[in-house]
Amino acid sequence: MINKIVQCVPNFSEGRRVEVIEEIVRAIGDTERARVLDYSYDQSHNRSVVTFIGNPEAVLEAAFRGAKKAAERIDMRRHSGEHPRMGATDVIPFIPITGVGIEECIGMAKMLGRRLADELDIPVYLYEAAASRPERENLADVRQGEYEGLIDSITKPERKPDFGPTRVNPGAGATAVGARFPLVPFNINLDTDDVKIAQNIARVIRGSSGGFSTVKALGVMIKETGKAQVTINLCDYHTVPPHRVFEMVKKEAARYGVAVLDSEIIGVVPCDVLTKSAEFYLHLNGFKGNQIMEKRLME
Amino acid sequence: MINKIVQCVPNFSEGRRVEVIEEIVRAIGDTERARVLDYSYDQSHNRSVVTFIGNPEAVLEAAFRGAKKAAERIDMRRHSGEHPRMGATDVIPFIPITGVGIEECIGMAKMLGRRLADELDIPVYLYEAAASRPERENLADVRQGEYEGLIDSITKPERKPDFGPTRVNPGAGATAVGARFPLVPFNINLDTDDVKIAQNIARVIRGSSGGFSTVKALGVMIKETGKAQVTINLCDYHTVPPHRVFEMVKKEAARYGVAVLDSEIIGVVPCDVLTKSAEFYLHLNGFKGNQIMEKRLME
Repeated sequence: MINKIVQCVPNFSEGRRVEVIEEIVRAIGDTERARVLDYSYDQSHNRSVVTFIGNPEAVLEAAFRGAKKAAERIDMRRHSGEHPRMGATDVIPFIPITGVGIEECIGMAKMLGRRLADELDIPVYLYEAAASRPERENLADVRQGEYEGLIDSITKPERKPDFGPTRVNPGAGATAVGARFPLVPFNINLDTDDVKIAQNIARVIRGSSGGFSTVKALGVMIKETGKAQVTINLCDYHTVPPHRVFEMVKKEAARYGVAVLDSEIIGVVPCDVLTKSAEFYLHLNGFKGNQIMEKRLME
Repeated sequence: MINKIVQCVPNFSEGRRVEVIEEIVRAIGDTERARVLDYSYDQSHNRSVVTFIGNPEAVLEAAFRGAKKAAERIDMRRHSGEHPRMGATDVIPFIPITGVGIEECIGMAKMLGRRLADELDIPVYLYEAAASRPERENLADVRQGEYEGLIDSITKPERKPDFGPTRVNPGAGATAVGARFPLVPFNINLDTDDVKIAQNIARVIRGSSGGFSTVKALGVMIKETGKAQVTINLCDYHTVPPHRVFEMVKKEAARYGVAVLDSEIIGVVPCDVLTKSAEFYLHLNGFKGNQIMEKRLME
């Protein structure tokens, strides 16, 4: 049996008072069976990001406790920072990792939204895969006008929250709650100092210019190595795993007589990101997720 | 931080009295932080196999509790079965999975051996990587003569146990405790009905005929498909991961004009078995074990 694992990466509007950030992290991490993997904060953004995982029940409860603590300790009336934001808990995405699909994460977003509204009196917007309408899928659109602008605009019919009052919570603001696939940052280094080749290849693979619809990519120069890089975000690794992009980049680079040097995956990723590619190259048929020992030890 | 995970696969000399097998499994599984992944038993062998995992402390304690229960409930004086055996708990291997090496598992084998001797009065032989001398590495050699034969031969100097009395425990017999790498059963199916080709390739890759020293392999016919298969055991996937064998089989098969159809991995394996191959094919440099999310959730 594989246990269900969901990841959650809430962003809080506090990046300066370390004791407040730590209180929030503690509220999340002290929740039974939720585990904080990482947290970081930025003074100029005045914003912090917490990454935690656990089973759906634990993650839902921990997300609520983090938002509750943030509502107690952060006052949006006195908040300033470079990063766009509209609430003390600004955004909460639920991300399926193991044994759950995006549908279950959408359900979690709705449950949490209802609870933030009912228990903390915070207006909530559902976004990305949980969005109630297409124009709310993009977080930047949801957050338009930020905290200060939303105070007035929230009363417009098109800005009506999905849950809670049609009035910004004075201290806690408003919160976006959503569901999305895990993002896998994947870079491929080319044996060339010609950044144009990397840019051409990025254009071929990314959705915005006709490539894979779940892939974002740019061509950049890496100063340290003097080599060009195709820097990629795989936004749905189930649909487009690393090997598919890697093989396409290799083929396209060969057309310029350029070799692929190596690749790198940034950050913490579900093991399936790599096992999918191993299955492809090894012609590994019939391999099942529950054959991975580490998946069977989780709870 | 990655938590340490050790696997243990004890074999017990009971394959008929289901209630006894379940008592043993319960003694293991009730140990805090030890988790039973699987157990199976065979009536004609009159033998059961339990697979469990956990951190080193939990696994050591659970292995002891299983052996204690087996000593209470199994009487070797009344045991018969087709499979060679010398004790109620016949053999206990510790297997490194994550965050531990073979050295730590050897240490566990010695600690458990000492405890089985001191607390249960059972003579213990260390075997495989934990063996105290080369002639005890092979389990079949350690078990020679079985329970009945060992009653006399145990007094010979060359059969002196590594721990405990130089006298077989009348009810519990003797136990082999060891450490080994996880075994990965890996089969590669060829697009041919000529089993000789599979046999030739098996000979090339296996250690016993000059190939990879940690690889065992045979060429067989699969009746259901009418195709030949190279059936492989990777005895140390750190040294020889699946892709290295797969690529060599592919090359050797091509020499006969035969294609590789597909491959299969049997049973539950550490995720690194697959991530090692993904790293190879994707030229993935600098990837670290703690970038696998599932490894960070274990305890």
